[in-house]
Amino acid sequence: MAPVSINDPTDTSATSSGTKPWKKIAVSKTVQRISNPIREVLAAIDLSAAPEAGVAKPLINLGLGDPSVFGNMPPAPESIAAIEESLRSGRALGYPESVGYPDARLAVANYFDEGPTGNWRVTAGDVVMTHGASGALEMAISVLAEEGKNVLFPKPLFTAYETMSAVANCEIRYYNLLPELNWEVDLAHLESLIDENTAFVILNNPSNPCGSNWSEQHLRDLAAVMNRHQVVVISDEVYAGLAWNVTGPEPAAASAPRVEGKFNRGVFTPYASVCGAAPCLVVGAISKRWLAPGHRLGWVVVHDPQGVLADVRQGLGKWAFRVQGPTSIMQRALPAILANTPEKFYLDTMTELERVGKALFERLSRIPGLKPYLPQGAMYLICRYEGLDFANDKEFVTALHLEERVFILPGACFRLDGFIRFVTTTPLPVLLDACDRIEAFCERHRLPST
Amino acid sequence: MAPVSINDPTDTSATSSGTKPWKKIAVSKTVQRISNPIREVLAAIDLSAAPEAGVAKPLINLGLGDPSVFGNMPPAPESIAAIEESLRSGRALGYPESVGYPDARLAVANYFDEGPTGNWRVTAGDVVMTHGASGALEMAISVLAEEGKNVLFPKPLFTAYETMSAVANCEIRYYNLLPELNWEVDLAHLESLIDENTAFVILNNPSNPCGSNWSEQHLRDLAAVMNRHQVVVISDEVYAGLAWNVTGPEPAAASAPRVEGKFNRGVFTPYASVCGAAPCLVVGAISKRWLAPGHRLGWVVVHDPQGVLADVRQGLGKWAFRVQGPTSIMQRALPAILANTPEKFYLDTMTELERVGKALFERLSRIPGLKPYLPQGAMYLICRYEGLDFANDKEFVTALHLEERVFILPGACFRLDGFIRFVTTTPLPVLLDACDRIEAFCERHRLPST
Repeated sequence: MAPVSINDPTDTSATSSGTKPWKKIAVSKTVQRISNPIREVLAAIDLSAAPEAGVAKPLINLGLGDPSVFGNMPPAPESIAAIEESLRSGRALGYPESVGYPDARLAVANYFDEGPTGNWRVTAGDVVMTHGASGALEMAISVLAEEGKNVLFPKPLFTAYETMSAVANCEIRYYNLLPELNWEVDLAHLESLIDENTAFVILNNPSNPCGSNWSEQHLRDLAAVMNRHQVVVISDEVYAGLAWNVTGPEPAAASAPRVEGKFNRGVFTPYASVCGAAPCLVVGAISKRWLAPGHRLGWVVVHDPQGVLADVRQGLGKWAFRVQGPTSIMQRALPAILANTPEKFYLDTMTELERVGKALFERLSRIPGLKPYLPQGAMYLICRYEGLDFANDKEFVTALHLEERVFILPGACFRLDGFIRFVTTTPLPVLLDACDRIEAFCERHRLPST
Repeated sequence: MAPVSINDPTDTSATSSGTKPWKKIAVSKTVQRISNPIREVLAAIDLSAAPEAGVAKPLINLGLGDPSVFGNMPPAPESIAAIEESLRSGRALGYPESVGYPDARLAVANYFDEGPTGNWRVTAGDVVMTHGASGALEMAISVLAEEGKNVLFPKPLFTAYETMSAVANCEIRYYNLLPELNWEVDLAHLESLIDENTAFVILNNPSNPCGSNWSEQHLRDLAAVMNRHQVVVISDEVYAGLAWNVTGPEPAAASAPRVEGKFNRGVFTPYASVCGAAPCLVVGAISKRWLAPGHRLGWVVVHDPQGVLADVRQGLGKWAFRVQGPTSIMQRALPAILANTPEKFYLDTMTELERVGKALFERLSRIPGLKPYLPQGAMYLICRYEGLDFANDKEFVTALHLEERVFILPGACFRLDGFIRFVTTTPLPVLLDACDRIEAFCERHRLPST
């Protein structure tokens, strides 16, 4: 998500003499359509700019949703050992099958399969290995969406969904998440947007940027909508197993027997485990729970209890062939990563995310003008502001960077106005330092009327 | 390129009671367009089928163009050490910039840059890191091609070009390679296909499946065509540096001072080093010369002496953001892989490919009905057959598999009728064993009239 820098040469002195100058080479309309809301928002903010006179503070960059940035949350040693072993095995050199090595697909299947007493059965044949969660989302979106169709995205959202949909040229409709219900879906609004041309709905739980984690009941309510209208879901669960509480008006009692220990403390509910007859494509990756987003290994799991996704399965296979499979080194390592990572690693990660999220929430709650939302999952805390002298959150973030050398993503990056997003993989002392600066900043910018 | 297997369940017993059965979910027309000529050809051949009665020979599978299949051509120990070091550094965990880590881009630039006395200058800003050569080709094709445009591919060709172009929905035109000129381009034919809607021409040198390596003069002649019509080239040079002789009617004398040792023995000529003012996108990867196709690291190098690719550079950046960058582990390892791999490794690889190619050529030349072409580069030997009782090469290959348990790709996989393709990374004894069987097979199938 860092800004791209590619040469844009104006030096044409290399033109060979004696050759007629070429005209500019045009790019495809497809590529012209690709937008990147994050980059567009950030284009106005020069992080390398010198601080304003008198500002001697070092830059605190809270922008990147990448747990490896500060070095405080390394992957499990078991992960690194598994990758080393894969590398040394001599079995991770060749082209993987384009849908993935059979043993990697089986490892993912075993990881999610709930067994005879659970609701979600997964086999290796249901799994396609992908180039990270981005590759999985791109694949699922491309197989289902096209011009003339509409697709439903949450608002706020991880805007890479938009970037990935640009090639398909489908219409994007946004269904509202409700901050007052801790970012549950406005079901009536969602339902009102569905029509016969709806290709899919993306659900993202736990949520980036909300830090929310829906209750089992809410997921069942969502599935009921999908069943009623026969709309397939792409369930972005890249933060699966990173949740410690259930959001919503009040914690819902589990309405079905749970498979304990499969994810975390039984708090996170996979959509596929409660959606009944409704089909879905589940997207995951080792990026978040295993804290290695750069290792670029993800998957699509097909959940198709009624066998209505036969063409979709074939389409996933075609798309996989088109881009070839992801790195053989990581695919060979995956079975050992999933088998050997101790439960303690997952618990420690969650404990730290919960601790940091709570402390950050409490600190921000004491700053007049800010209204943080307590994180229940994922790696984010979303915070509303009010009564400050900014026309929009881009202005807020730009001024904060100039005056206090704190950089943070504005809600505009997630199509949400009047918010800022914190990343809770950041070490707490860094966050608290940033909060001190933000407090002084908000003090200076408070509107007289508040 | 292995056949894909994804569940296609007919068991609908999991349908939840009380829910109206869903209708089949449709896939996008984009995905429906994706073809895979290799898989389509192979669909008729069941490699797991039991041999015919009386055929007790073990299967010899010569189908895969993957140097790691037989274990006889491992990567350099320096490559593996560089990857281990990358993994242990703790610097290969996070999201790379979507166009690649700066040091990986710089390493590629330094590798190709010919220095002040050469013709091809490359900076880090000219390089985009990609998910293998496939990712590079997909990116370059998608940025340039679209519906209403035409694109020119060689015939025969690596048909993945077609698979990757399906999304763009452009018209594909095939320019002929001339076997009688050792697979040089039929320049007049190429030129006749170019019109004002031509988006690009793909050149593939050294060639899959031909095993050819064009002379510098032929590349200059190609560049002259491009300059005349202002058509940008995508130069697929994934086999760059894997060539030991120059094909064509007769070896051409080098017409410009060469940078020695940059590739191999000065035999391979990068298109960008001789194309003058013509712009091009050069595609490469560590898959072939470094013998690790599963490691999935490739690149696009922008060669733009006149500055006419500004929009294309921006488009490459957008596409890179769309799919995120390739594996951080490999990107961090790349500078050391390029710096530390000894020249002897490259020479040994070529020596072996040349030795195997020559021995295979000589053996096949002694089989009546076969006309092999002596490989000059890449990892392939292409062989014509004639006077045998097959309607086409798919029949040849199917019968060979059934009768002799030898599997080999037919020319149909490369849009070339009446040919078969050998992979010269296969150990020579395996190839010679296969040749003995092929000789007996051809003997049995010779037409009476020959």
